[in-house]
Amino acid sequence: MSACGAEPGLISIDQALSLIQQRTQVLGVEIIDLNSALHRYLAENVYSNINLPMFSQSAVDGYAIHADDVIQADATFALIGEIRAGQSAEFELKHGQAVRIFTGAQIPNGTTTVARQEIVKTLENQTIQISETLKSHADIRDIGEEISVGQCLAEKGQQLTVGAIAALSMAGIQQIQVFQYPKVAVVITGDEVAETVEDFASGKIFDANAPLIQAWFKQRNQTVDIFHVADTEQAVKTLLADLSQNYQLILTTGGVSVGDYDFIRPVALDLGFEQIFWKVKQKPGKPMFFAELQKTDQTSCYLLGLPGNPAAVYVGMQIYTSTLLDAFQGQASSLQWFSAELSHDLKADARERFLRMSVQFDQAKLKVQSLAKQQSHMLSNLMQANCLVRIPAGDKIEAGQIVQGIFI
Amino acid sequence: MSACGAEPGLISIDQALSLIQQRTQVLGVEIIDLNSALHRYLAENVYSNINLPMFSQSAVDGYAIHADDVIQADATFALIGEIRAGQSAEFELKHGQAVRIFTGAQIPNGTTTVARQEIVKTLENQTIQISETLKSHADIRDIGEEISVGQCLAEKGQQLTVGAIAALSMAGIQQIQVFQYPKVAVVITGDEVAETVEDFASGKIFDANAPLIQAWFKQRNQTVDIFHVADTEQAVKTLLADLSQNYQLILTTGGVSVGDYDFIRPVALDLGFEQIFWKVKQKPGKPMFFAELQKTDQTSCYLLGLPGNPAAVYVGMQIYTSTLLDAFQGQASSLQWFSAELSHDLKADARERFLRMSVQFDQAKLKVQSLAKQQSHMLSNLMQANCLVRIPAGDKIEAGQIVQGIFI
Repeated sequence: MSACGAEPGLISIDQALSLIQQRTQVLGVEIIDLNSALHRYLAENVYSNINLPMFSQSAVDGYAIHADDVIQADATFALIGEIRAGQSAEFELKHGQAVRIFTGAQIPNGTTTVARQEIVKTLENQTIQISETLKSHADIRDIGEEISVGQCLAEKGQQLTVGAIAALSMAGIQQIQVFQYPKVAVVITGDEVAETVEDFASGKIFDANAPLIQAWFKQRNQTVDIFHVADTEQAVKTLLADLSQNYQLILTTGGVSVGDYDFIRPVALDLGFEQIFWKVKQKPGKPMFFAELQKTDQTSCYLLGLPGNPAAVYVGMQIYTSTLLDAFQGQASSLQWFSAELSHDLKADARERFLRMSVQFDQAKLKVQSLAKQQSHMLSNLMQANCLVRIPAGDKIEAGQIVQGIFI
Repeated sequence: MSACGAEPGLISIDQALSLIQQRTQVLGVEIIDLNSALHRYLAENVYSNINLPMFSQSAVDGYAIHADDVIQADATFALIGEIRAGQSAEFELKHGQAVRIFTGAQIPNGTTTVARQEIVKTLENQTIQISETLKSHADIRDIGEEISVGQCLAEKGQQLTVGAIAALSMAGIQQIQVFQYPKVAVVITGDEVAETVEDFASGKIFDANAPLIQAWFKQRNQTVDIFHVADTEQAVKTLLADLSQNYQLILTTGGVSVGDYDFIRPVALDLGFEQIFWKVKQKPGKPMFFAELQKTDQTSCYLLGLPGNPAAVYVGMQIYTSTLLDAFQGQASSLQWFSAELSHDLKADARERFLRMSVQFDQAKLKVQSLAKQQSHMLSNLMQANCLVRIPAGDKIEAGQIVQGIFI
């Protein structure tokens, strides 16, 4: 609300993101089934073992024909058989011959063109007649015209979207090597947080952070283990000591400021975590904390301490946790920053801000408009927001200025 | 490849989408846990039972003070106790008194302002001194300033995004009424489709469609049951008859064209399905089929028959299945069409097209560029594509023209 901003020593958002990328050790690789790889990143180039199409095939339902060059209208051919999709082409077409064929079926040797069924008349005596001029090599999908054996299908670092999974499946890929995804524990601090309705009492509040984080990971098809901890040094210490042995990432909410009951940072330091940064010159989420515990087995456990205010947690997940998870998997941040025109003035702020906004497309132009209720303890505008926009610190920002954002 | 386009009788993309929306019966409602509601749609308005904040609270770690109006620098106050977040405020502050307080903790009765700890010095004898002028009502979050009891938190039809789930959780909402999601069966037709590596033989191809559809639903945190069926009328009939009794939506791939082995449509009609449309003037995906079976219990089973080519399946899922699933849940299509400037000319086509493209943001402007290998049997450009762009039928399209697309 006040007095937050001009403190010296805070690092910038870019510095924080850069430290996350530099200081996070990439996890190992593993081989998994392609059908369970949604959202994961390839750890190796994938090359094709096959041609695509795998064989020259018909692009239509029609007739494969052996003819010289262009076929003139009314030409006739002897029908010698049929090839369905999925059958191998055992025929050898000779001049003047045709076979019935279906979309995707292998064309027989000797095929010079394919006549789609709409331009073919079947006559008596196993004869067909073509009703239009037909060029050579019509409606043939050539072997390897999309992909040839040995060609790179996907490069290391490719994220496995729905489309990427489909394209790899088509080339017969069933298992792939991907970067490991960290095992994540989430620690919700704060005696004020009611865990259940029964638990709720005067002075306690409902918890938005655990449902927020759980849904955030669910959207990425990942699960996390959630722990609640009391605001005592001993409880925090016991829990973090335990989790640091069994997880690669501990995400915490609350307890990272300088209040008398903010135990996350002192306890982490006490347990041997090395501070990578603490406090970012941003709004919301200033007291964010990032630390690494190097363990005796040469692996590390990282702790990303998000402030307890739900808006800070939301921004922390969308911007920082996202970048951190990419770093664990050997990737630069996958955040897709758009540029957009601000629809109105914004007053100055000493800190860089992430504002929840509404983006609209107007004749190929993106325009963003801020929403009310941006304070860090408020979330209700997420019902309307569809983007998170980064607003530079310092001077007043004027309508028409270009800003960067991500879709949410 | 050819001769597809100018046929009379085909309906347009808009007509097909409109028929899906008009003809799909909205499913019933159900009450589910908020934490399992990601991506679902609210079936009722949700009103708040509480104020947010639930009580007037401190926005900072500091001191709650009872003073007259503005406090001048160097003023002192008697420290009478402490209130932590999560504790109820049992104090009654009198003039000249202060209590230690933490972010989110309830301010006691009598509080006129809060002094953040950075501007407070603790003296001897339980006295504190304020080092800067401090206005009245500083750093107080008022009860109900975000949400008041009875206020509408979210409207019927709101999609439950991560942010919406967090915002509702914060107001203590744990269960919500949502529209039911249909039970979906997926039927993969085509004797040419190899189901497993062992199954693979000359003339067969690897199946991209089942992995594509499975991943598409997984991305939406839904599961589907997948069935493969041989290209015989009897096999298709037995399967569809069975599925139509147990599912609300049957999605099929392949078998909807006019080939001799395209059994989906004739079998569906034979089983009593009523055709809503067949064939859309689009590329890819012309022979798409949509039908409804009205059952004796007044419910319906719908069949969306996608062509077998994987690009047609991809477009079919992104555009049509998406719209259909929204319709089942009582919603207009949730497709978010952006507008963008085309970076290059495109040759004319008699059919409207969905092209896989790459979108870039250039100073608040969206620019789209088409990718190679757009044919309906090709998918490899989905490694690079990040949007699907709708290109009008008819004339040549010129660089700079505004087109509509969706992010993928």
